[in-house]
Amino acid sequence: MTSPSEPAPRAAVIGTGLIGGSIALGLRARGWHVTGTDRDKERLDRALELGALDAIGTDESALITFVATPVSSVADAARPALENGGVVTDVGSVKTGIVAAVDHVRFVGGHPMAGSEQEGVDGATANLFEGATWVLTPTLDTDADAYAAVRTTVSSLGADVIALPPERHDALVALVSHVPHLTAAALMALAADGAEEHATLLRLAAGGFRDMTRIAAGHPGIWPDICSENRDAIVGVLDQLIGSLTAMRDVVGRADREALLATLERARAARVNLPATLGRSEELVEMRVPVPDRPGVIAEVTTLASELSVNIVDLEIAHSAEGERGVLLLLIDRRESDALGEALSARGYHPAVRSLS
Amino acid sequence: MTSPSEPAPRAAVIGTGLIGGSIALGLRARGWHVTGTDRDKERLDRALELGALDAIGTDESALITFVATPVSSVADAARPALENGGVVTDVGSVKTGIVAAVDHVRFVGGHPMAGSEQEGVDGATANLFEGATWVLTPTLDTDADAYAAVRTTVSSLGADVIALPPERHDALVALVSHVPHLTAAALMALAADGAEEHATLLRLAAGGFRDMTRIAAGHPGIWPDICSENRDAIVGVLDQLIGSLTAMRDVVGRADREALLATLERARAARVNLPATLGRSEELVEMRVPVPDRPGVIAEVTTLASELSVNIVDLEIAHSAEGERGVLLLLIDRRESDALGEALSARGYHPAVRSLS
Repeated sequence: MTSPSEPAPRAAVIGTGLIGGSIALGLRARGWHVTGTDRDKERLDRALELGALDAIGTDESALITFVATPVSSVADAARPALENGGVVTDVGSVKTGIVAAVDHVRFVGGHPMAGSEQEGVDGATANLFEGATWVLTPTLDTDADAYAAVRTTVSSLGADVIALPPERHDALVALVSHVPHLTAAALMALAADGAEEHATLLRLAAGGFRDMTRIAAGHPGIWPDICSENRDAIVGVLDQLIGSLTAMRDVVGRADREALLATLERARAARVNLPATLGRSEELVEMRVPVPDRPGVIAEVTTLASELSVNIVDLEIAHSAEGERGVLLLLIDRRESDALGEALSARGYHPAVRSLS
Repeated sequence: MTSPSEPAPRAAVIGTGLIGGSIALGLRARGWHVTGTDRDKERLDRALELGALDAIGTDESALITFVATPVSSVADAARPALENGGVVTDVGSVKTGIVAAVDHVRFVGGHPMAGSEQEGVDGATANLFEGATWVLTPTLDTDADAYAAVRTTVSSLGADVIALPPERHDALVALVSHVPHLTAAALMALAADGAEEHATLLRLAAGGFRDMTRIAAGHPGIWPDICSENRDAIVGVLDQLIGSLTAMRDVVGRADREALLATLERARAARVNLPATLGRSEELVEMRVPVPDRPGVIAEVTTLASELSVNIVDLEIAHSAEGERGVLLLLIDRRESDALGEALSARGYHPAVRSLS
């Protein structure tokens, strides 16, 4: 991104905990100048001491600002950060409310799906996002260059970027993150009730139980915000899970071996197919899509790609000299290019695929 | 256990899969002569090939026989094995039905709480039980010497033995093993439903979800038996969990931050206190308990110890020359000896504690 003759590009981080600190460390390791703020003065000093920051304070010339505060304070932190003309993104676990509240063409909602047993800036590492999925949630209003800037920056941290509409992101994380967390807590609390009566119980808790309840050991402080922001999706998935468990109870109750086996087989097949890591594309092609130079294009194309399960490895906007049209450059897997090309053509675009080899 | 001048003690294993094979390997590594059978000839040959067995077949002079078959066939395998006068134990995940069906003074129900991602005898290792909890379920009829023999043997494999009444074992494993497994499957199946609609979902499945659903990847074949044998306990715990999740749903639905935090804090405290490994006692004492030489004593004393959370590190029966009375020798933690001593005294026993140092 930088050459020896250019000054370091400048970034800002608001909130220097585990995630903000790791972003700051990752950016500095890649040649960025990083300035940071945190409402907690001690944590901020510690971030500086650990080498996550070049300086404490705000930076009027930051090209990109990462808001890494709790979900409930992202919008208030993002608005002033947008005033200097740079792009702003965040790392909140729920996106619909934040994206609607900030409502700005240069704000791109984000959610890195990475955590750590560690908490706080002392657990921060420059490589926390290597191989992690990082969701971005552009809307019809999102500026294409702002989106491309955020995408390029988080990709440079080693993350695999997926673009999703904010509402879709929230529905999916309710299913794979929020409800699993609440369920782990419910199981652990049940076992704890049993343990009060009989401490032997916890000695019987073998690997499977430990795996299932591990996330319940996390700090509860973030969850009231998450559950409040994503209430409807979480309640919906909890209802589904309660329904599944009630069906499971009936199957066990009437000793229906076939139905039990069918359910477990289905779960097993799904779990075995859960990708351990995202497969890197073997052969990439560049898809060039002439687009009108207006908001909405990025959201439309990226949403289409995610609906088709097409992984966009990289994305760039080439503006025409006239400024009215541009070309969207997508780096995708050759095997997935036909599906995306057809879907784009059906929507009136004229994509062209170019081999890279 | 053996000296060079003595012949190797003889054991038999019925069922040479992962658990049976690991027992056989562990016993052979400790100087036992191990004979094995399996209804699957190929698996049996493989066990011999892997060095888990000295010989294929039954052994009339086996001191101890481990029945490591599926839950539903334990009783039928255990009965003939008892005919040679040795002791017999099993490794089934549910105990009440098996113990009642075999109903023999020399049969001691058992359940090693150890597994492996591996399946089958190729995953067997001599150290599978190192540090694992191994539950034994003596009853009022269990012969004290039979119990002591099983206990000594499984302890020698590195396992930490807990004695529990069969019904209590089944209630506890429903809570820490069976229902967590069914819940992992339910969560995974829900996610798979979502994934059919949108494959992106599985790319969002980060560490917590992977941890929670890992056990759902296990082979489903054993579960119809387990769910059938332990039906009432599993249905009971599923009802409790459905109740907890319904309460959780209501807390989220009405955005009750305090109630949510309280539940999560409680779960967190319990999970953080879940022992990673069983603490080995720092200072052991020997408790000598004169007992009438009759069945029921072992079950009474071991159940009492487990109710008081007293860990019996070792146990032995010293018979008197007259054969009517004996002395039960218990190796326990000094810090726990007062509690057990008082409880035994209250029941008419006269325990004496002797320091080992």
